[in-house]
Amino acid sequence: MESAKKIMLQCDYTEGAHPNIINKLIETNLLQTVGYGEDEICEEAKKFIKKHLKNENVDIHFLIGGTSSNQIIIASCLRPFEGVLTVESGHINCHETGAVEATGHKIISLTKELKLTPEMIEKFCTLQENDPNREHVVQGKMVYLSLPTEYGILYTKKELEDIYKVCKKYDLYLFIDGARLAFAFSCFEQTNLKFEDLPNLCDVMYIGGTKCGALFGEAVVIMHENIKKYFRYHIKQRGAMMAKGRLLGIQFYELFKDNLYFEIGKKTVELALYVKEELKKKGVKLFIDSYTNQQFIIITKEKYDEISKKFVLSLWDKNEEGIICRICTSWATTKETLDCFLSMF
Amino acid sequence: MESAKKIMLQCDYTEGAHPNIINKLIETNLLQTVGYGEDEICEEAKKFIKKHLKNENVDIHFLIGGTSSNQIIIASCLRPFEGVLTVESGHINCHETGAVEATGHKIISLTKELKLTPEMIEKFCTLQENDPNREHVVQGKMVYLSLPTEYGILYTKKELEDIYKVCKKYDLYLFIDGARLAFAFSCFEQTNLKFEDLPNLCDVMYIGGTKCGALFGEAVVIMHENIKKYFRYHIKQRGAMMAKGRLLGIQFYELFKDNLYFEIGKKTVELALYVKEELKKKGVKLFIDSYTNQQFIIITKEKYDEISKKFVLSLWDKNEEGIICRICTSWATTKETLDCFLSMF
Amino acid sequence: MESAKKIMLQCDYTEGAHPNIINKLIETNLLQTVGYGEDEICEEAKKFIKKHLKNENVDIHFLIGGTSSNQIIIASCLRPFEGVLTVESGHINCHETGAVEATGHKIISLTKELKLTPEMIEKFCTLQENDPNREHVVQGKMVYLSLPTEYGILYTKKELEDIYKVCKKYDLYLFIDGARLAFAFSCFEQTNLKFEDLPNLCDVMYIGGTKCGALFGEAVVIMHENIKKYFRYHIKQRGAMMAKGRLLGIQFYELFKDNLYFEIGKKTVELALYVKEELKKKGVKLFIDSYTNQQFIIITKEKYDEISKKFVLSLWDKNEEGIICRICTSWATTKETLDCFLSMF
Amino acid sequence: MESAKKIMLQCDYTEGAHPNIINKLIETNLLQTVGYGEDEICEEAKKFIKKHLKNENVDIHFLIGGTSSNQIIIASCLRPFEGVLTVESGHINCHETGAVEATGHKIISLTKELKLTPEMIEKFCTLQENDPNREHVVQGKMVYLSLPTEYGILYTKKELEDIYKVCKKYDLYLFIDGARLAFAFSCFEQTNLKFEDLPNLCDVMYIGGTKCGALFGEAVVIMHENIKKYFRYHIKQRGAMMAKGRLLGIQFYELFKDNLYFEIGKKTVELALYVKEELKKKGVKLFIDSYTNQQFIIITKEKYDEISKKFVLSLWDKNEEGIICRICTSWATTKETLDCFLSMF
Repeated sequence: MESAKKIMLQCDYTEGAHPNIINKLIETNLLQTVGYGEDEICEEAKKFIKKHLKNENVDIHFLIGGTSSNQIIIASCLRPFEGVLTVESGHINCHETGAVEATGHKIISLTKELKLTPEMIEKFCTLQENDPNREHVVQGKMVYLSLPTEYGILYTKKELEDIYKVCKKYDLYLFIDGARLAFAFSCFEQTNLKFEDLPNLCDVMYIGGTKCGALFGEAVVIMHENIKKYFRYHIKQRGAMMAKGRLLGIQFYELFKDNLYFEIGKKTVELALYVKEELKKKGVKLFIDSYTNQQFIIITKEKYDEISKKFVLSLWDKNEEGIICRICTSWATTKETLDCFLSMF
Repeated sequence: MESAKKIMLQCDYTEGAHPNIINKLIETNLLQTVGYGEDEICEEAKKFIKKHLKNENVDIHFLIGGTSSNQIIIASCLRPFEGVLTVESGHINCHETGAVEATGHKIISLTKELKLTPEMIEKFCTLQENDPNREHVVQGKMVYLSLPTEYGILYTKKELEDIYKVCKKYDLYLFIDGARLAFAFSCFEQTNLKFEDLPNLCDVMYIGGTKCGALFGEAVVIMHENIKKYFRYHIKQRGAMMAKGRLLGIQFYELFKDNLYFEIGKKTVELALYVKEELKKKGVKLFIDSYTNQQFIIITKEKYDEISKKFVLSLWDKNEEGIICRICTSWATTKETLDCFLSMF
Repeated sequence: MESAKKIMLQCDYTEGAHPNIINKLIETNLLQTVGYGEDEICEEAKKFIKKHLKNENVDIHFLIGGTSSNQIIIASCLRPFEGVLTVESGHINCHETGAVEATGHKIISLTKELKLTPEMIEKFCTLQENDPNREHVVQGKMVYLSLPTEYGILYTKKELEDIYKVCKKYDLYLFIDGARLAFAFSCFEQTNLKFEDLPNLCDVMYIGGTKCGALFGEAVVIMHENIKKYFRYHIKQRGAMMAKGRLLGIQFYELFKDNLYFEIGKKTVELALYVKEELKKKGVKLFIDSYTNQQFIIITKEKYDEISKKFVLSLWDKNEEGIICRICTSWATTKETLDCFLSMF
Repeated sequence: MESAKKIMLQCDYTEGAHPNIINKLIETNLLQTVGYGEDEICEEAKKFIKKHLKNENVDIHFLIGGTSSNQIIIASCLRPFEGVLTVESGHINCHETGAVEATGHKIISLTKELKLTPEMIEKFCTLQENDPNREHVVQGKMVYLSLPTEYGILYTKKELEDIYKVCKKYDLYLFIDGARLAFAFSCFEQTNLKFEDLPNLCDVMYIGGTKCGALFGEAVVIMHENIKKYFRYHIKQRGAMMAKGRLLGIQFYELFKDNLYFEIGKKTVELALYVKEELKKKGVKLFIDSYTNQQFIIITKEKYDEISKKFVLSLWDKNEEGIICRICTSWATTKETLDCFLSMF
C-alpha cells in the first residue's frame, strides 16, 4: 500500500490505542466476565467517569462508534413524527449515509452557519408553535450539536447554557455529540467550560473514545430520566450491543481511571496549536480559527500536490483562494512529525 | 462481583481473544492506516479467507457483531415488502430485540422444528406462487439458517445443497449465519462439509469471530452479485462501519493467516464432546445430541443449585424432566475446568 | 369482464354504499368545509358515535381503511423495540404485506388457535418478566384482536373483560380491530356484548365502515390518554389524512345518526344465519360455527367448480374433507340471491 | 361552525366533486365488482388516461391522496441509503410530517429557489461522483419536482427536457408530483407543454384528482420499467390499497372519459387569472407571478382582518411589505364569488 508509507495527518484515528489501553487488554484477556456490558470492568469505568463528571445521577452506556451512538440516541428520544435540529454541516446531516433517516426521523437544518445560537432555536420553535398547519410539519423535539463542531470550533459554557435554556423552554432535548470531546477543554480561558459542567448543560451526550486515544468506543451519558429507562433495548435493536462488552469498558477504564483522557486532549491540542502558529508565521492561510486538534488550511494546488508526496491530508473543499485541507493531530502525533510537515512550507 | 469468582461455562464469549490476536494488536498499534476497513491489514485478512475458501470471486466485509451482521445483510437484500424465512428458534427471530423488523422486514417462521428442510421452503413457495391474494402477503425472498444452529446442530453438505437448490428454484437468497462457524467442521464424517464448500452452498454468509476466539467481529462473505455492489453504504447507514476498521482486520488476519480458526474449532469441539461423553457415562440426560461446542443437559433443580455455587450455566428452558441448561466450551476452556465440572456429577 | 356477470358472494365489499350515504354525499357536495377532518360533518359524526358509545371521553378519528388504521394505531403506541401480540391468523399477521413491520415493529404470534385467551397473554408476560435476557427480546406491549375475528368468530363480553384485565396487569394496550364490528352484536344472548361496552373493554379500537355499508372508512376510537395526544401527526405521517376529510365524516354521520350501523349489522347477519341453517339442512359441512356474516363451508372440488359457474366464492383453504370456501353477506345482499345460491345444493 | 359561513378561498379542496363524478357514483352503486382496484371501472379509467397520454406502455395505479402517493412512489424506487433531491419548499420537504423520512429516506434540499434547474442537479451529481467519502453520504437517486410547484409556478417543456436529460445522465429517476396537474396546461403559449408530453419527460408521475375536481384520488403513471413490477405490493404495505378500489376508478373514469380534467383545469385557471388581473388593476401587490389556480397576494394586516370577516384566505408568510396570502380557485369557484371578493379592494 503506497499510502501507508506516507505520514498521515488527515484524521485522528490512524493509529491504534494509547498503550495503557493495550496493556489493560493484555492484563484482562483471560479474565472471565459476563457479556453485553454488564461486567465489572464496565462498572468500574462508569464509576470513574461519574467521578470526573462529579455526578452520580447519570446513566452511562458504552457504544461502538459515533454513527451508531448518534442513531441510537436520536431514535430512542423521538416519536415517529419528531425531528432533530442542527446546523447544515452537522455530522448527522452530512456524513452518516442517512443513518438517522433510516430510523424514520427528519434532520432539520436551521442554518448554514457553523454553530447554533439560541435565537435560531427560538425562532424555529415560535414558528412551530404558531403554525396553523402544525400537524403537517415534522415537529422539532431535539437539538443536536457537536463539541467541538465538525470544523473544530468550540461552544463556550455561556453559549451552551443559553442554548439549553431555550431547549427547556420549548421542551426540546439537547444532545451533545462529543466524538472529539477530549479536545474541548484545552481553551478554558476562552470557553470557561469544564467536563463536570456538561451534565448540567444537556440531556444526553457522548464522550468520544475512538478519536481520543481509544481503540474504539463512545460513552453515552444520559441525564434526562425519559431517556434512561429503555436505552439498552435500543442498543440491542440497533445492532450495537457487544457480546464482549468489557472491551469497551477497558477503553474508558483507562481513559478515566486517572486523567488520561484530559492529558491526551491537552497534549493533542497543544500540538495542533503549535502547527497552527508555525503555519501562520509562514504565511499559510487558515480557513477557520480553530483551537482544537483539527486545523483547516488553504493552499494552492501545487503546494497540495507537493505535500501529498510525503503526507496524507484531508481534502475538504475548494474556494477562490485555493484548496482547503484538514490536518489533525492525535494522541500519537509527535512534534517531529509536525516539524517535518512544517518544513515543507 | 460474586459471579466473577465462579467458573463460567454459560457461553463462549467470557474471555478476551486468542493470544495471537492480542500480539498482532500490540505489534500494529502504532502503524498508521487509513480508516473504515480499507487498510492493508484488512486486505491481507481478506486474502487469507479467500484462500481458505478457495474462491477469489467473493466480496468480504468485516462487521462488528452478529446482530449487526444479520440486520445489514438482510436489509441489504430485501425490497420493503419482502421477508426472510427461518425456523421459530432462529436467532434473528428470538434474540435480537426486533433488529430485523426495525429495518422494516417481517421474519416468517416456517416451523417449530430446529432445522429447515427443502420441503418446508418448497411448500411455502408453492403456496406463495399460487396465492390469489399474493399482493396482500409479505413475499418470502430470503432463507436464513445458522450453522451450527441456535441449538448447536449441524446441517450436512447434502442438506445444504438441497436447500440451496430449492432457493435457486424459487429465486430466494440463501443466507448462512456462521456466528459459530468454527465449530461446524469437526464432524466431517457426519456432515461431509468443508469450509471451502460454503461459497457454493449459499449467496451470503458470515464467519463468526466473536464466539470463535476473536475479540469481536464477523466476516461477511458475499457470493451473489446483487448483494455486492452497495454493501458498504448499508454498513455505514446502519452504524457499523468502524473508524479503525483495521481492528476487525487484525482478528481475521490472525484467525486465517494459517489454520488458527480451524484449530480453535477443533479443540473447542473436542472438549465439548469430551464433557458430553463423560456426562453420558454418569447418566446425565442430554436435551439434544449436539456435536458442536454447545451441549444441553437436563438436570434436577437441586443439582442445578448445587452446581451453580461453583459454575455459571445458561438456564435455557424447563421440561417435565428437569431444568435444561446450556454449557459451552470456548477457545479458552481447559480440560482441568471441565474435569472439575464433571466431578460435581 | 366475465367475473362481473357472476354473482359475488366472496366478500362484503363488492358494492358501493348504503343509499343514505350516497344521498348525504349528494346533499353536501357543494358545501364548503375546511379540510383534513376538522369540518362540521366530521364533528357531528363523532358526536353521534359518542352518543352510541355512551361515552364523551373518547377521541375519534376517521381513517381510510383497515390496513392504514392498523398500521397507524400500532405505530403510534409502541416504542421501537416493542411488539404486538396476536393469533397466528390475525389479519395484521397474514394479510397486510408487512404493513406493521414496515413501521419497525414485530408481530408476535401467540397461538395457532383462532382466538386469544387471557392465559396465553399471561403466560407470555410471565416469561417476558422473568427472562434474564429480556433486553435481547422484543417486548410485548400491545394485544391485538379482531372482533369478529378473521374467521368470523366472536368474543363474549366476559372474554374481553378477562383479556383486558390481564392486559392492564401487565401494562399492555388492548386494541380491538373492528373492521366488521357491525356484525358483532347480533348474538347478544351468546356474547352479552353491547356496543357501549367497548370503551370499557379496550384502550383503542376502530369501527369498520368499509365492510359494513360505507363507501370506505374506519372510525378509530381512543380511550387511553397516552394514545390521544399526537394521533393526528401519526395519521398525517403515514399518508392517511384526507384533504376532503368530510367524505369520511359523511359515512359515519349516516351510519350513526340513528341506528343504521346496527340495522345493517343485524340484517346482514340474519341473512348469513339463514344461509347457514339452510346449508346445514342440506348436509353441507361447515368449517367453523360462525354467527356473523362470514360462513365457511367445505365442499368437493366438483361442487366448487359447478357453483363457480354462477357465483364467486372465496377460496380459503383445503383439508382432507374438501375445499374450504368463504361466503359473505353484506348490506346489499338479498334473500333472493341466497336462495338462488342455496338451490345449487 | 363560524368559518363555514365565510366564503372559502384558501384552498382548492373545500367542496365535494364535480357532478359527473357524483352521478357515476350513484349509477354504479349497486354494481358488484372485485376489490383492490382490479375492477372494470378502474380498467376503463386507465384506458382513458392512456389515450389522453397517447401512450399504451405505462402502468397506472389509483391512490388515495398526495402524501400517500409521494411516500409510496419514493419508497418504491430507492434503496435504503438513497435520497430524493428537491427544492427547499418542496411539498415532501415541508408539508408531510416526515412521511418520506418515515420510510427511511433523506430528502436533500438543493436550493432555496422555487424551481429546480439542470445545473443544480448536475452540480450535486458531480460532487457526489467525485466525493472520496461517497460511502458516508446519502446517495441522490431521484429528483422530485411538482408541476405546478408549491407556489403555483410552471416548468416549461424545455426546462423539463433539460432536467430529465441530466437525470438520465446521472441515472436518477425523475418524479413529477402533479397534485394540481390540471392547472399546468392553461398557458401553452408559455410552457409549450402538453399532457401527452409527460410520459417522455419523467419516469413516474401522478395526476392529481383531489385538488382538480375529484372527491379524492391521484393516478400514478409509471414509465420506468424498474418501478412497474412490484408497485402494488408497495401500495398494500403502505396502507393505501382501497377495498372498494372502484371509487378511485370512478373519479378518473369521469375526469378522463372525455376532456373533463382539462376543462376543469382551463376554467379554474381562467378564474384565477381574472382575479389576478383585477387585483393588479386595483394595485394589489402579487408575491409571485403565477399563471395557475393559486395566487399569492401581499396585503396589510388591516386589509387581511377586514377581508377575513367574509372570506377565508390562506395565511402563507409575512415579509416587510405585509402579509402574504394564498387564494385558490377550484372547479367549483364562481365568477360571482370572485367579484364579491374583488369588491373588498
